[in-house]
Amino acid sequence: MYSFEALTKLFAEKFRDKRFSGAVPSLYEPAEYFLSLGGKRVRPVLCLMGNELFGQIHPDAWHVANAVELFHNFTLIHDDIMDKAVIRRGKPTVHAKYGEPTALLSGDVMMIMAYEYLSKVSPVYLHKLLAIFNKMAKEICEGQQLDMEFEKRSDVTLDEYIHMITLKTSVLLAASLQMGALLGGSGEGNQEHLYAFGKNLGIAFQLQDDYLDAFGEPEKFGKQPGGDILANKKTFLVIKALEVADAAQKAALLAHFSGNKPDKVEQVLQLFRDCKIDHWAQELKNKYLDTALFHLDEAAVTTIRKEPLRDLAHFLIRRQY
Amino acid sequence: MYSFEALTKLFAEKFRDKRFSGAVPSLYEPAEYFLSLGGKRVRPVLCLMGNELFGQIHPDAWHVANAVELFHNFTLIHDDIMDKAVIRRGKPTVHAKYGEPTALLSGDVMMIMAYEYLSKVSPVYLHKLLAIFNKMAKEICEGQQLDMEFEKRSDVTLDEYIHMITLKTSVLLAASLQMGALLGGSGEGNQEHLYAFGKNLGIAFQLQDDYLDAFGEPEKFGKQPGGDILANKKTFLVIKALEVADAAQKAALLAHFSGNKPDKVEQVLQLFRDCKIDHWAQELKNKYLDTALFHLDEAAVTTIRKEPLRDLAHFLIRRQY
Repeated sequence: MYSFEALTKLFAEKFRDKRFSGAVPSLYEPAEYFLSLGGKRVRPVLCLMGNELFGQIHPDAWHVANAVELFHNFTLIHDDIMDKAVIRRGKPTVHAKYGEPTALLSGDVMMIMAYEYLSKVSPVYLHKLLAIFNKMAKEICEGQQLDMEFEKRSDVTLDEYIHMITLKTSVLLAASLQMGALLGGSGEGNQEHLYAFGKNLGIAFQLQDDYLDAFGEPEKFGKQPGGDILANKKTFLVIKALEVADAAQKAALLAHFSGNKPDKVEQVLQLFRDCKIDHWAQELKNKYLDTALFHLDEAAVTTIRKEPLRDLAHFLIRRQY
Repeated sequence: MYSFEALTKLFAEKFRDKRFSGAVPSLYEPAEYFLSLGGKRVRPVLCLMGNELFGQIHPDAWHVANAVELFHNFTLIHDDIMDKAVIRRGKPTVHAKYGEPTALLSGDVMMIMAYEYLSKVSPVYLHKLLAIFNKMAKEICEGQQLDMEFEKRSDVTLDEYIHMITLKTSVLLAASLQMGALLGGSGEGNQEHLYAFGKNLGIAFQLQDDYLDAFGEPEKFGKQPGGDILANKKTFLVIKALEVADAAQKAALLAHFSGNKPDKVEQVLQLFRDCKIDHWAQELKNKYLDTALFHLDEAAVTTIRKEPLRDLAHFLIRRQY
């Protein structure tokens, strides 16, 4: 069996060899540019790991892994247009470099190419894989729409927020694992456990991401914390703080989020700490991690085969407290 | 067998009953709005007619017809964003009504739903249909990219223009017919004839569209001619005129296309007539119509079963001269 690192390297090599070209280079070059910016390739590797859990890697798992990675990158290209983001992975986003029309179209063609890879699998799996893939694909669009809606609302609840990040980011991890498991010959029960493992791991990862943006140590996190606070993003930290704060704290928080004082980040972080949001956030993250690991435990597979996935979970989510 | 009109009515009724809803109404409502604006539904009906050519309509042909119509509408939503068009079918375009981010995302989800319908077909046809569909889908993106590129170029040749409209509009008609034929149990030879019939018919239709925009009679055409000329669109009429015009005519044409004199439309039309572009355009259109009909004739099916498709071709393309 491969470790996460080994599979990541293997996938990255195979994926890099795929060049997207066609009769209209100006359409495929932006797609190629974006893929060349790299990325962690977590999703395709989860598909391969979910597959390897049940035996040797099935040749079709590589097609599904490609499809999953292309679909993920398509969503990033379009999200960047919607969010007007000009930098990703330290480089200009596709629309910043090639203009919005071409970026939009390159995203479209990348989604079609994701389906093209998916269509390569053996007929015996095709129907089921398409059903999982289509459901996941629609949910990701729903998640992005909710995310944009939440930007304009001030009454988003914690449940709504978790639901949004589940759709926007977790279902792709979940579906990748499930599709890998399906190709490994896994029954529906095990597929559901793998899906639940991925879904809860994805939520824990997103919560950790929000947490680190606020409380991460700059030298480990790689950037100055407080970006979300400066951008007035309504992360789960803000939602919870507004829920538990007393009247004075709530007023102070709202004032910070409608202004841009020079000491805004420090002040908001202090308010978060006063409300014990940092502890609560870690506990919530751990709860989702534990639920993820529970589902991995429940999968009816020899414990030793689960080690790479367990290692990955602990690598992605650093348990604290 | 159904006539084109009867099938159009039948399809429109079935299609109208499909309501796109989901847990995030704000994502599906814009899609629903756009579909409610109507449209000729030519493409799905071609799929059904291509199918009926070989026998009774196969239940899967309805799924493919839905997929084809959804894919077509997805391309229109995204094209309108790229072209910054604010009106379609006399109503605000999706991005004009709901904003660009939501329009982009509603288009994405509509493409996924097209694949969802396609995925409903029997396993025995799924692989082949996906191969035809994916190829067509990529070509349409390529056609749109070429169309945008040609806007910025002044040296587009007639061959390049025909190639662009083939990708952008004709391959969808062609693939719709081919997929219908495939589901009718047709062999590859007949499928190819149906594809060629649709492709050439689509080119003839697009050429006629450009022609009517310049030379159409307002009372029959439904709008004042000259819209393309006013918008400086490089249709095949302009390309050919620049090719055959003498030095003085060419200079006059180029001057018109870099300015906006009040009598621009009349002057350009007169230049077109002086260069016999109107006759030539009709002949070119007829050539593609004849090629389309040749391929319909060549299909190994009783002549009587071909009548609805032949009628449709003559209904869509009015032969002149």
